[in-house]
Amino acid sequence: MGAVETQVPETLSPSALDELVERVEQFIHDVVVPREPTPGESLPEAVRAELQAAARSAGVFAPHVPQRWGGLGLPISQWPRVFEAAGRSPIGPTALNCMAPDEGNMHMLSEIATEEQKRRFLAPLASGEVNSCFGMSEPHPGAGSDPSQLRTTAERTQDGWVIRGEKRFSSGANVASYMIVMARTQEEGGGEAAATMFLVPMEAGGMSIPRQIHTVDRAIGGGHPHVRLEEVQVGDDAVLGEPHEGFRYAQVRLGPARLTHCMRWLGLASRAQEIALDRANRREIFGAALADQGIAQTMIADSEIDLETSRALIQRTADLLVTDPKAGSKLSSVAKVHCSEAVFRVIDRAIQLCGGDGVSDDLPLAQYLNEVRPFRIYDGSSETHRWAIARRAAARQRRRAEEVSR
Amino acid sequence: MGAVETQVPETLSPSALDELVERVEQFIHDVVVPREPTPGESLPEAVRAELQAAARSAGVFAPHVPQRWGGLGLPISQWPRVFEAAGRSPIGPTALNCMAPDEGNMHMLSEIATEEQKRRFLAPLASGEVNSCFGMSEPHPGAGSDPSQLRTTAERTQDGWVIRGEKRFSSGANVASYMIVMARTQEEGGGEAAATMFLVPMEAGGMSIPRQIHTVDRAIGGGHPHVRLEEVQVGDDAVLGEPHEGFRYAQVRLGPARLTHCMRWLGLASRAQEIALDRANRREIFGAALADQGIAQTMIADSEIDLETSRALIQRTADLLVTDPKAGSKLSSVAKVHCSEAVFRVIDRAIQLCGGDGVSDDLPLAQYLNEVRPFRIYDGSSETHRWAIARRAAARQRRRAEEVSR
Amino acid sequence: MGAVETQVPETLSPSALDELVERVEQFIHDVVVPREPTPGESLPEAVRAELQAAARSAGVFAPHVPQRWGGLGLPISQWPRVFEAAGRSPIGPTALNCMAPDEGNMHMLSEIATEEQKRRFLAPLASGEVNSCFGMSEPHPGAGSDPSQLRTTAERTQDGWVIRGEKRFSSGANVASYMIVMARTQEEGGGEAAATMFLVPMEAGGMSIPRQIHTVDRAIGGGHPHVRLEEVQVGDDAVLGEPHEGFRYAQVRLGPARLTHCMRWLGLASRAQEIALDRANRREIFGAALADQGIAQTMIADSEIDLETSRALIQRTADLLVTDPKAGSKLSSVAKVHCSEAVFRVIDRAIQLCGGDGVSDDLPLAQYLNEVRPFRIYDGSSETHRWAIARRAAARQRRRAEEVSR
Amino acid sequence: MGAVETQVPETLSPSALDELVERVEQFIHDVVVPREPTPGESLPEAVRAELQAAARSAGVFAPHVPQRWGGLGLPISQWPRVFEAAGRSPIGPTALNCMAPDEGNMHMLSEIATEEQKRRFLAPLASGEVNSCFGMSEPHPGAGSDPSQLRTTAERTQDGWVIRGEKRFSSGANVASYMIVMARTQEEGGGEAAATMFLVPMEAGGMSIPRQIHTVDRAIGGGHPHVRLEEVQVGDDAVLGEPHEGFRYAQVRLGPARLTHCMRWLGLASRAQEIALDRANRREIFGAALADQGIAQTMIADSEIDLETSRALIQRTADLLVTDPKAGSKLSSVAKVHCSEAVFRVIDRAIQLCGGDGVSDDLPLAQYLNEVRPFRIYDGSSETHRWAIARRAAARQRRRAEEVSR
Repeated sequence: MGAVETQVPETLSPSALDELVERVEQFIHDVVVPREPTPGESLPEAVRAELQAAARSAGVFAPHVPQRWGGLGLPISQWPRVFEAAGRSPIGPTALNCMAPDEGNMHMLSEIATEEQKRRFLAPLASGEVNSCFGMSEPHPGAGSDPSQLRTTAERTQDGWVIRGEKRFSSGANVASYMIVMARTQEEGGGEAAATMFLVPMEAGGMSIPRQIHTVDRAIGGGHPHVRLEEVQVGDDAVLGEPHEGFRYAQVRLGPARLTHCMRWLGLASRAQEIALDRANRREIFGAALADQGIAQTMIADSEIDLETSRALIQRTADLLVTDPKAGSKLSSVAKVHCSEAVFRVIDRAIQLCGGDGVSDDLPLAQYLNEVRPFRIYDGSSETHRWAIARRAAARQRRRAEEVSR
Repeated sequence: MGAVETQVPETLSPSALDELVERVEQFIHDVVVPREPTPGESLPEAVRAELQAAARSAGVFAPHVPQRWGGLGLPISQWPRVFEAAGRSPIGPTALNCMAPDEGNMHMLSEIATEEQKRRFLAPLASGEVNSCFGMSEPHPGAGSDPSQLRTTAERTQDGWVIRGEKRFSSGANVASYMIVMARTQEEGGGEAAATMFLVPMEAGGMSIPRQIHTVDRAIGGGHPHVRLEEVQVGDDAVLGEPHEGFRYAQVRLGPARLTHCMRWLGLASRAQEIALDRANRREIFGAALADQGIAQTMIADSEIDLETSRALIQRTADLLVTDPKAGSKLSSVAKVHCSEAVFRVIDRAIQLCGGDGVSDDLPLAQYLNEVRPFRIYDGSSETHRWAIARRAAARQRRRAEEVSR
Repeated sequence: MGAVETQVPETLSPSALDELVERVEQFIHDVVVPREPTPGESLPEAVRAELQAAARSAGVFAPHVPQRWGGLGLPISQWPRVFEAAGRSPIGPTALNCMAPDEGNMHMLSEIATEEQKRRFLAPLASGEVNSCFGMSEPHPGAGSDPSQLRTTAERTQDGWVIRGEKRFSSGANVASYMIVMARTQEEGGGEAAATMFLVPMEAGGMSIPRQIHTVDRAIGGGHPHVRLEEVQVGDDAVLGEPHEGFRYAQVRLGPARLTHCMRWLGLASRAQEIALDRANRREIFGAALADQGIAQTMIADSEIDLETSRALIQRTADLLVTDPKAGSKLSSVAKVHCSEAVFRVIDRAIQLCGGDGVSDDLPLAQYLNEVRPFRIYDGSSETHRWAIARRAAARQRRRAEEVSR
Repeated sequence: MGAVETQVPETLSPSALDELVERVEQFIHDVVVPREPTPGESLPEAVRAELQAAARSAGVFAPHVPQRWGGLGLPISQWPRVFEAAGRSPIGPTALNCMAPDEGNMHMLSEIATEEQKRRFLAPLASGEVNSCFGMSEPHPGAGSDPSQLRTTAERTQDGWVIRGEKRFSSGANVASYMIVMARTQEEGGGEAAATMFLVPMEAGGMSIPRQIHTVDRAIGGGHPHVRLEEVQVGDDAVLGEPHEGFRYAQVRLGPARLTHCMRWLGLASRAQEIALDRANRREIFGAALADQGIAQTMIADSEIDLETSRALIQRTADLLVTDPKAGSKLSSVAKVHCSEAVFRVIDRAIQLCGGDGVSDDLPLAQYLNEVRPFRIYDGSSETHRWAIARRAAARQRRRAEEVSR
């Protein structure tokens, strides 16, 4: 394995964390929200750079990145409130440089990459100089929800590897400098199917973007295109960490990456709820403030419940990812399903509470709904996770039954 | 009241209806679907005209319009299957000239207008020569879900009326030739607040479109803009039917109009289910066809249940609108809430079943979701209807309790 | 096959049906409700006989039974409103002799049995002299939701058959005079597994009830015990209809039997809604009638929607069972899932609306919930039906895809 | 106010807590489960005493009670896992003497009572010698969900107070030694309506139980009867804490009491899920283990999600009750609604997964459903809490809007 990141994260005191969260909220409110693009539009590159500079000045930049690479160095257990605060704007996480897929890549690189790889790939990513992407999903019948179906291969050559395959939903590929490519490799002496991760510059020979895919979301810059790898030749130093450890590394990325999505979208859902409450407080209907109308109250309360259950489960999972990463990763499946569905419901109710304005560009809510809709699909669809959750529950009970019967 | 439409609708025999439905399905499949605009785009005017001509040739044009005005003259009880078949394409109802708001206006005109008004306003609308719009909703705090809040007024002058006010969500206004305007009027000798409907050409002096509103749907041509009426002068012949009968006439329009929305969107939901089933049938995942996977099966079955309950309730309401219009209008509230929510769920599940493709432009499903999302809001939001349904249920029970206690 | 029932059912005119439904409602209200046992208790046999006599006098007895056997002879399409009216009391269907399992057995006998069998088995059942039961479900791993697992066998002997096996959830067996037994039989010359139905008196040698099963419901008299068949010998005249046609006959029973459950329980759910509305109308909370409180209104409206969708779907399925029995049987799966879940929700909401009283014996609602809870399981669980519905939908789409591709 | 409980709770180390939780689970499994009464039956008093003695020996008795009164003295933040483990049997909390209403009363007494009152009322309650009850709810139109409607009054006399009124749903009153009575009192010099809590022996003159109320649950011993207070005379020493502080004290009790219900019922829901998983693991259906069937998997996963969200929210609320009791009390409303509905769903799904057995006495699941059904009503119904949650959310947003506008 690559150099283990031995630097211990800086755990903030409760009051320091409170203060940081407030600072992020203030920054989002004062600096980021006024620069939000109109619904359906993407964030211009210049504004992105400007906002990141402002975030750096405000001391809120890259909260998840180790301090030696320019971040705040928070442990995962302290990300939830900070990321939620950032997520209150669809472009907030980009401003703080903690947006997917870069954020997950930074995390994985800081955990797994060699020192040299960190300097070359992590440093410019952490500073916001470059973007990255992650190449896991493949066109049918390759690896979609089921990573074992991986069809992209990396074959050993005398002086490195040659990679062949095609990736899809390669979020951010259009603006990325490099892709972390997951490819099937063959361990010496046969053995089970293995996978290796490679750091491949987008400008490497054989890399191309044959096809853009337009999806309903806009918050992840650089689209979600197909990326083709035709006889892409890389050296041994392109192997992220150790060869044949790709499936294990993927877990290092996936658990936290799933959860940070939850954190960010929870922020957006909170904002949606506030937009709805603002309107409910001001708007009279049938002779009373809408907020006092019971039918609205049911919806408002249901959204509060969705927000608080999500918040509690995210924090619990983040804590567990620190104390028991394996259990934390399992719980992140539960969190992912619950939160992705809860934030959708919250935004959907907010639209409903705002009536006609809710589906118009007068309010950003309909766009928010489009932003979060894909979250129930990417990073493992709700159905794939439910399947995994059910299987784990059944297995757990089989073990328990065996213990008792012994 | 205007001339009562005495012409009895042409009730088709069961087999003739079967044949018509099949013809519409075929027409949609062969002629309309190939001309669908890409997701997010609107239908060009030229294509619209071409499709309507084709529909006329195919004998499927204007199924709801009396034969003397060029339609098929079906009674409401025979609309459901025909409209559902048309709705299988987002542009199908436009091709058959049975799309909102025109379709509801045609229905109301043929029920209420004077012979002269029918010639002038209904005839060109029924033939597809012109478009129309309906001006009921107003900017807050005017008439939204609560028509009694009407702020647009029409004042009697010596030789007619002068109308002042502002309408919003005036669907289709950008391409309409005239608007049916709902305005508050004062009956002679005081009395309760009344409303009158006026037929006002969009080119009349004082009519303007001060503001476009962009919403997430595209299927209703001509957008949903604001329309301002500044000292608009009209003659007595602009009064649709009789003065001060606006609220009653609105009911004539609203019940059926709500229900035809249900019919059309049910068609789109059916199409979404088929797209999902097609994919489920072809796509292997975890070693079996997705359609055989139980988690997918739950979703498929839930959508079937949503489709069948909607279908049954629509037909029942349509039958009732013929035999007992008042009861039919009440039941149309129930149908509207159920169907608007059911079709949203069906399309949402279809997206989920199609995974990443579902949220991309490779499939039209994400756009379908945006098409039907506003339906839970317009024509009375789910909440407004729930409120009305609950109040009616409580009142019904009060009457029953009184009967028993007597 | 046995004598086909050629007698055409007496289809009532709309007004005659209205009148009958009103008569049943009146009978239930005036005669049956006052005799309802306290929650959790069963109906005494004497009261049952008395109520059936009263029903006969009132002209509402056995609405589904052909007139020559003493019933009203209504076609299935006219059962829904009558059965719903009867179901307004948990003992109403028993009073009208249209309760499960007898009602389903009467229907099957009148469709399939020989003239001799009708005289011997249908006549006394239709008149309420005796009870019957239906032996299909078996203890695990026999036939539960999956009839093809049938383990009870009938072997041909020289002068008849010998039946061996065990049945469970044999509703009504404790008070039944005979059981219609489903047993696996072997067609001559091999062939696929077949099943045959037998009419077996409970007093036949080898019949025993080894075990009572207590379930949460009370409305079906005679419990749901196990029934053991040890070397039960019957003659050829015990074969219901023709041998080896059991699976087909089962369908004759299952479709309508499922639907009549829906009708009856819909009546109980309607009553629950009325109990809740009565209380909501009378009870003040937070300074306003509970019925005017929006949170209550949401629940009331949701129950109205559940009731109306169920009602519409039941009627549609009943109509279809007359015009296209195969399609009707398929749709009855959808109706069964929807209605069994809808009535549970309606009663559950009624409890909630009644607060503490709702879970106490002051009101019958908690018992109603227990009455309908098993309905989501028996006659095919919601999950089994969802599985079947999804498979049929997928197959339908495969056929459609093939047609198009040709 | 009475003597403040200054004794700091004994916070266990993480590993000591793990060990305790395991000990409780073991105790429940080995000692308590074998003594569970058959479904629908109550726990005999002798068995209760025996189990409590065993719990004391096992070192798991009264985990929430301060050590000086014989308990384990855990802080609220360490109750969740212990109470959940106890709740895995419906009689587990009684065995550990942490069942409602006694547990909530112990908590309130140890927080509020004078030293003398603790000796007289808390000590025997904590040791399991006596039972208690809490008199808050009143028959309509008194205090139900709305405490301000309190109709029971306490009037000052020369040497104490005289209490008049009627309470209902006085859980445990049949076996209680005393009731903590909430009564309306008048502060000197007028002022707002106030309330005072009184410690009243059930044998005091004027106390009677005029009416039993039978509800569907059995786990709370001593039923939920009405209690009448006719001219009940008590001394000043019967005032719990200070006079006129009843509403504030009620909050001290209600927040934690709500949450401990959540903890205990979560245990029962976990047990239900395990019963279902056990069966799903063993039972073959359609040729595969039910647990592998996707439709079952959806249900199993949904229950896991319900369990984990509940667990996370309970722990978060318990932590908050320690660090910020006011915020904790507010969040307990959210937890109460979510958990009461989640545990009902989990048990309901478990029944469904177990098919016919699920609604029979072969399994305890149907009884579990009856146990938890009232939890959505008592301690504030879901609707009352939703109303409060929505109002708090709206008020929070109003404050935020004002801050921004300043």
